[in-house]
Amino acid sequence: MKLLEEKIIKEGKVLPGNILKVGSFLNQQIDTELLREIGTEISRLYSGCGVTKILTIESSGIAVAVAAGIIMNVPVIFAKKHQSSNVDGSVYTASAHSYTHNTDYNMVISRDYLTSDDHILLVDDFLAVGNALNGLISLVEQSGATLVGAAIEIEKAFQGGGDELRARGIRVESLAMIERMTDTEVIFRR
Amino acid sequence: MKLLEEKIIKEGKVLPGNILKVGSFLNQQIDTELLREIGTEISRLYSGCGVTKILTIESSGIAVAVAAGIIMNVPVIFAKKHQSSNVDGSVYTASAHSYTHNTDYNMVISRDYLTSDDHILLVDDFLAVGNALNGLISLVEQSGATLVGAAIEIEKAFQGGGDELRARGIRVESLAMIERMTDTEVIFRR
Repeated sequence: MKLLEEKIIKEGKVLPGNILKVGSFLNQQIDTELLREIGTEISRLYSGCGVTKILTIESSGIAVAVAAGIIMNVPVIFAKKHQSSNVDGSVYTASAHSYTHNTDYNMVISRDYLTSDDHILLVDDFLAVGNALNGLISLVEQSGATLVGAAIEIEKAFQGGGDELRARGIRVESLAMIERMTDTEVIFRR
Repeated sequence: MKLLEEKIIKEGKVLPGNILKVGSFLNQQIDTELLREIGTEISRLYSGCGVTKILTIESSGIAVAVAAGIIMNVPVIFAKKHQSSNVDGSVYTASAHSYTHNTDYNMVISRDYLTSDDHILLVDDFLAVGNALNGLISLVEQSGATLVGAAIEIEKAFQGGGDELRARGIRVESLAMIERMTDTEVIFRR
């Protein structure tokens, strides 16, 4: 998606440790005009796929999931992050590791909102090694719902998570795919 | 807003301790058709008021803030919650107490995104005693930005926070105002 790539080049900041800061338009401060375009593109990519719900994880995935949900006119559900694994039988749960915060956490969603009748589109802001996405996939599998695919704003392709999922036959659409980053430059996959 | 009140009556669940569960349409699972209507109503209420940015707090405020921002075509910024007060000089910070989780936390936002030129509309899902909103107001005051007002999905009017803010001359618009709740019934203020 050209508009997003241009925005990354113009406003993104590369920090040591392969970190890409997009706080000025995707997190912390959200450019809603761009977000509407992103939602429209996700809707276009998955139109006719029978998506019944969008699933994301709090909190940075909520904005893009809501934008896509408003345009696709399907409900958005989000998994919550919990420190403890002390959860009761009314929820599905999966564990994941956050490289950003270097902690493990559990993602939790109520069984009421994710059911075997659902056709789920996963939506998130970033995809790197695929930890969060693998957790969400586990929640979908536990529920017996059908996984339609995933839509990601920015994929760090060089970290391999996206290609691993594609190799498993899962449809993963990323609106910007970063092939590599140097100290001064972001190079996209073509 | 009639549509929201009807949804609260139909799907909301009253729990002991004056808790209103709206997980099936406002949190956890978000009814995006309703959310679009809510965003449109917020846009209508504050049209012509010169709003330059919407400010909310993670994570339950993000969905409604993004919906309003998409329709009003203004950026959305959100304060993050931190456990520690160990923050550097590049941010504004305010402390608040969460009655839901019975913990204190700091709300933090970068000085880059909240400036004295801004005219800020605060948006959040709930208003009860007004803790979160007072913290956000403090962030706005620290930045020298102009506070236009606040838009809230559900105000628990019986907890007083909204009327306190109105008495201070702050415009607070709540799309559903709950006068009182019994074990079985939600009564709205008219």
